[in-house]
Order: sequence, then structure tokens, then C-alpha cells
Amino acid sequence: MSSTADRVIDPPESGRFDATFQRHLGGKMETRSKVPLRTRADLALVYTPGFTQVAAAISRNRADVYRWSIKQNTVAIVTDGTAVSGLGDVGPEAALPVMEGKALVFRAFAGIDAFPLCLATKDVEEIVKVVTCLEPTFGAVMLEDISAPRCFEIEDRLRDELTIPVLHDDQHATAVAVTAALINAAKVVGKEPCDLKVVIVGAGAAGTSSAKLLMQIGVRNIVACDRRGPIHRERDDLNRSKRWFAENTNSFQESGSLASTIAGADVLIGLSGPGVIVRDHIKSMARDPIVFALANPIPEILPEEIGDVAAVIATGRPDYANQIDCSLCYPGMFRAALDCRATTINEAMKLAAVYAIAGAVDHARLARDHVVPDIFDGVASRVADAVLRAAIDSKVAQASAQGVTT
Amino acid sequence: MSSTADRVIDPPESGRFDATFQRHLGGKMETRSKVPLRTRADLALVYTPGFTQVAAAISRNRADVYRWSIKQNTVAIVTDGTAVSGLGDVGPEAALPVMEGKALVFRAFAGIDAFPLCLATKDVEEIVKVVTCLEPTFGAVMLEDISAPRCFEIEDRLRDELTIPVLHDDQHATAVAVTAALINAAKVVGKEPCDLKVVIVGAGAAGTSSAKLLMQIGVRNIVACDRRGPIHRERDDLNRSKRWFAENTNSFQESGSLASTIAGADVLIGLSGPGVIVRDHIKSMARDPIVFALANPIPEILPEEIGDVAAVIATGRPDYANQIDCSLCYPGMFRAALDCRATTINEAMKLAAVYAIAGAVDHARLARDHVVPDIFDGVASRVADAVLRAAIDSKVAQASAQGVTT
Repeated sequence: MSSTADRVIDPPESGRFDATFQRHLGGKMETRSKVPLRTRADLALVYTPGFTQVAAAISRNRADVYRWSIKQNTVAIVTDGTAVSGLGDVGPEAALPVMEGKALVFRAFAGIDAFPLCLATKDVEEIVKVVTCLEPTFGAVMLEDISAPRCFEIEDRLRDELTIPVLHDDQHATAVAVTAALINAAKVVGKEPCDLKVVIVGAGAAGTSSAKLLMQIGVRNIVACDRRGPIHRERDDLNRSKRWFAENTNSFQESGSLASTIAGADVLIGLSGPGVIVRDHIKSMARDPIVFALANPIPEILPEEIGDVAAVIATGRPDYANQIDCSLCYPGMFRAALDCRATTINEAMKLAAVYAIAGAVDHARLARDHVVPDIFDGVASRVADAVLRAAIDSKVAQASAQGVTT
Repeated sequence: MSSTADRVIDPPESGRFDATFQRHLGGKMETRSKVPLRTRADLALVYTPGFTQVAAAISRNRADVYRWSIKQNTVAIVTDGTAVSGLGDVGPEAALPVMEGKALVFRAFAGIDAFPLCLATKDVEEIVKVVTCLEPTFGAVMLEDISAPRCFEIEDRLRDELTIPVLHDDQHATAVAVTAALINAAKVVGKEPCDLKVVIVGAGAAGTSSAKLLMQIGVRNIVACDRRGPIHRERDDLNRSKRWFAENTNSFQESGSLASTIAGADVLIGLSGPGVIVRDHIKSMARDPIVFALANPIPEILPEEIGDVAAVIATGRPDYANQIDCSLCYPGMFRAALDCRATTINEAMKLAAVYAIAGAVDHARLARDHVVPDIFDGVASRVADAVLRAAIDSKVAQASAQGVTT
């Protein structure tokens, strides 16, 4: 276990230049022209005086910015670097390679032009102001790796103030992928969502959003735990998201310890950090335990430690079966949001994405090591199709086809 | 003349879809991956967990952001859309195609990844705050099409607050190109810079910066005019940039009219708008008039109206000889600034760019219709080489080669 951890978080040793750093040298992405620029005639069309003609047209009808500019296909990936997965508050510079990775996934799986914006501020007001000022260039905003509880307020404020869709990836895209995986895992072990006891370890940004979606697919018994044990109404140490858990989950108001809460549960969802879950926890669960150990890059417990006990194991890692990652959701989600110029990303769209991801694993191929589809298997286009329909049905779509005002 | 103007500023007629709008449909640029993303192994390197390893390395040494991210080659093109050439205050959405055009030129001539950021605010404090917050992602900032006098304060403030170079294109890159063209035009008519009387019509952002550079190449007699005539110390209606002209130019404190100021001048530089200059002005100038009519896209006076009177005519247009455009300067200027991680862009670097652009026209090929080099003739790399040397000589270079910390 320590060797795995070392491999993940070690710096490049002096003189050693491994494949990961090689791929990152000089940055992973670039901006490219989509139009020819080889002659003075080209320049006259796409530079002066051509662009003045187009600017004049947009100045007469501002909505035409979706037609004649990059806005229609461009997503801002905004972070302050305070909650980088597996690292925490490492600052905006360190977050940049992570945001570039997100942009690469947008491009590869959904043809979206995404651009990383790593902000040198942690102030909620300033972040809201900066993103609001940036709205004209972008068709949508993905918030990324912003720590709780600021992430909640920033997302809420931006959803109010912007006319373009905003989604906090760590909350919602992760929750969509978790919920999709649970639908399939329950099928594998022959249980119904309404009969499951689900324990969520880690009551942060992703936990709240996951619980909400799990309820929407029929899960009734959810208990969230933090390091002090199960969250219930009698506790007086609860922040905003934990208060939500106390009021909306744990219907039997279980108290006690993490271990006593996990005992007899059907599903354990780790959204915390390495080492929080041990083998004895899994052994105490109901028959055919479903374990999602999603701390990344180092899971709460490694699959090889519980392979003989758990029925279904998922992690956030690409080197194990069943990788649950927000990348299953956000490329298709934003593809749809851009294509129909959605005014927002609502619960119906998230739920559509859940079922699209779950349905991307063919029923005949469902197995304990295959409850999550491979991102390379066309998941994004399935998600985009389903979300687009949901956006239209829930009347948040403004256009019938990409970039065309209806 | 009216047909030229119409062609430039007309909207696309109903049912008509001309080449300019065709090239702009859906935006002119895109973001692309520089690394392969075809397999799960690729994902593990450039996405999770690979990017976490790189983020950890940068968190330990923040300067490594130049090594392992896009920062080293990425320029923010920032505007509020208040001073779009030929249009004025059309807003940030309408400015977006113009900024995309700038980004295309950065890519085509200097291999730079530039990204347009069109801001929904005109407030100086907010613009400064937004750009300051965006610093982590970018290696340099180009301010574009921001109206005077706010452009001066914004540039000054950002030069103070950022550790990356900042350049207001409309002031400085235009001034560099104007000064380079004047060096060559003076040679063509056999006059020395120190003997020239130069009249600048338009005392805005580009005028001030041009005057400063003209003085540095030896021009002593400069008079700027606004719509009320020559700017001199007795006038009590002067804003910040006009006050600068009153105190630093017009050594004989000429008063009178635009026409009386132009009479006998050697050089007329128009940085104003269409129709300000008439044929009689040119006829009243000293022998071999040099006329730069740089209002764009419609010059102060069209070349065909004065071809028999002026010795050298330049415009900002690509469809006439001698196109003077900031694009001769900014790609090479920023290439050098990024390559050596310059802390600023100083006067020595601008002057180096002036002589590099002037020198890009071979002496044997200098002619009245060839005082400005063609941007396709390698101007950017000449500028980059000269500016890099100037940055090193003036001790504002932090690195000896691109992206490598010294």
C-alpha cells in the first residue's frame, strides 16, 4: 500500500523524468485556429477589416455572439486551487495541470473548447465577481476543486447571477457517476435501491449532492458519517452541508460510531481520504457489500485488501475495475447544455445523465467488475443525448441545435 | 468612397452569407490537446492520477508552473469592448471576434496560445481585480480595445501589481509599427528624423505612445492635434494624455487650426477617424509628404485621393500598400517576453522591436509603396530575436530559454 501511495504522490526524483512529467512538459493543451491564415486575403477576412464587420453585427444583436464567436462551444473551468483531489489547498498554480486535464477530457470526449482559469483569490465575493465579469466569452462555467463550504455559496450565487449554465463538478458530476454506478451495482447483487442502507463517509461537497441523487433513484436509508461518526439532529457541531444531512437523511437518527453505522449496511461510499475505512468495516456489512472507495488518488481502502469480502468494489482510479469519475458525466452534460443553450443545469438533467451512464453498461455484460462503463465506450454522447432531451422537456433549452438561436 | 465604407461595415444582408461571416461561423479558434488521449493509460498520465503528481510538484515549487503547465506559452487578451477599432464602445460580446482574430495572429506568427477574455465591466477597479486574479494561468497579458483614459490607469496598475508582463496593444504595439514605418518612409524621401515636422491627428492612446517612440528615434518637432486644433500649454481643456502632449511636444507652442498646423509639415499621422483629413491638407505639406492614415477600417483619407500628392502613404488596411498594424509588433514582442520570462515590457524592448520591423524591409527594396514589411515575411521572428536581446541587456529577463527557470 505504501508503494502505491509513494508512486502517486512522489515528486520526480533528481535526474528522473517519468512519463507523467514528460506528458506535462510545456503544458498539455494549446489554442489553434479553425480557419486558414496563410495569405493577406485570409487576414482581411479573419483579422482587420473582417472582424470589424462581425463585431458590428454582434453589436446590433448581442445574441449573435453565439453564432459568430467561440462562445457557443467554450467552457470556463474555474478553480481557486483550494480542494485539489488528494492534495487539498495547493493554490491556483498547482491546480493548473489538473484543470488542463479536465480541458483535455472535454475536448476528447465531447469536442468542447474548455479553458482553465485558476484564480489567485479565495474570497467568495471576488470569485463571484471575476466569473461574472468573464461571462461574455463563455457558453458555460464548470467550477472545480473549490473547498466547502465556499463552493456551495459560489455555485448558488453564480447560478443566480449568470445567464449561462454553471456546474460545480466535484459536487454534481461526481454524484451523477456515483449514482449511476450504484444502480448497476445493486442489480449485480440483486437488491433494489429502496431496500439499501447506504453509508456515506465524508459529508463534503460530493456527499450532499450524491445523497440527493440517490434519493431520487429511490434510496431511502442514507446515513452520512464524518470523523466523529454518524450525522444526526442531536449533534451541535454541524456546518451547512452536515446540517442538510441531519435534516434529510438518517431517518432512524442513528448515533454511535463509524463502525456501528457501517455494520449491516449494504453500501459504503467513501468520499473522504485514505485510511478511513478498514477491512473489518467491510466484513461487518450485510451480504454482498458494495464498496465505493472514491478518495483520489489514494482510495479509503485498496481493492486488493477487500476483494474476498466485498461483492462490488469501485474506486476513482483508472488502474482498477469500476473507475467512478466525474469525467463520465461532465463532457456529455456540458455538450448538451451548450448545444441547446440551456439556461441552467437542473435536477432533471442530472438524473438523465445518471440513467444514461448506468445504461451505457449493457445488461448482459453487468458484472461485479463491470458496473461502470468505460469512458472510451461512447458514454459522453449517450449522456449528451439524454441530457438534451431532459433540458428540452424541462423547458430550460433556448435553441434547437448548436449555436442557432430559436 | 462610400462603397468602400459600406463594404466594411455593412451587416450580412438577409440570405447573403459572405466569406467573412463564413469564416467566423462558430468561432475562429479552438483548444486542442498536445498529448495523446486514446487509451486508459493515456488518461492515467494526463488526467487522474497523473495530474495530481504534477500538481504536488508545483505546490512544492510554484515556479515550476512554468515548466509543467500552459502558463509559459499562454497570453490573456483582455478587453472590455469599449474601444473596438472603427466601432467604439460595442461591448464585450461584440469584441469577441476581434480578440479571436488577435489570438489567431499570435498562433500563426509566434506559436503563442492566446485566449480572449472579454469582460462585462468598464470599472477600472474591477478590471484590475479580475486580471490580477487571473494571473496564475497566464504568462503575459495583452490589453486590447479599452478606451482612454481608463486604458492608461489599467495598464499602469497592472504593471505594478502583476509579476508577468502587460502591454496595451493599441498604445504600444501600434506605436512600434508606426515608428518603424516612419524610419523607412523618411529614408525613401531622403529626410532625417531630426529634421521632420510630424503632426499627429488624434491624441488618444496610440498617439501618446507613438510620440514617445518617435522622440526616441530622434524626431524633435511633433505637434498633436485634436478636433479643436493643435495641443499646446495655453489650452485649458486637456485630459491626461493631451496634457502630456502639451508638456512634451509642440516645442514652438503652435496654436491655430488643424490646417495651419499641417501646412509645411513633413509627416501626417492620422490616429483618429474617417474624414478628418482632406486632400488640401496634404497639398499644403512640405515636399514629399508622408501620410499615415491609420483609422481602421476606414482611413482618415483614402490613398486613391492623394496618390498624386503624397510621396508615401500608409494605412491600417490589408488591401493597400504599406499596412501599418500592431500585428507587426505584438506576436514577436510577446514571443520574446514569454521565452525569457521577462518581468515587464520596457522602452528598450519596444525600441528593439521598432528597428527590427524597419530592418525587415531590405534596404534595396525600400520604395514609396514598400516602407512596411509584410507580416508573412518573418517579421515576428526578427522582432522576437531583437526584443529578447533587449530584455536580457536591460536585465528584465528571468530565464535563458523558454520555460526553463534559470
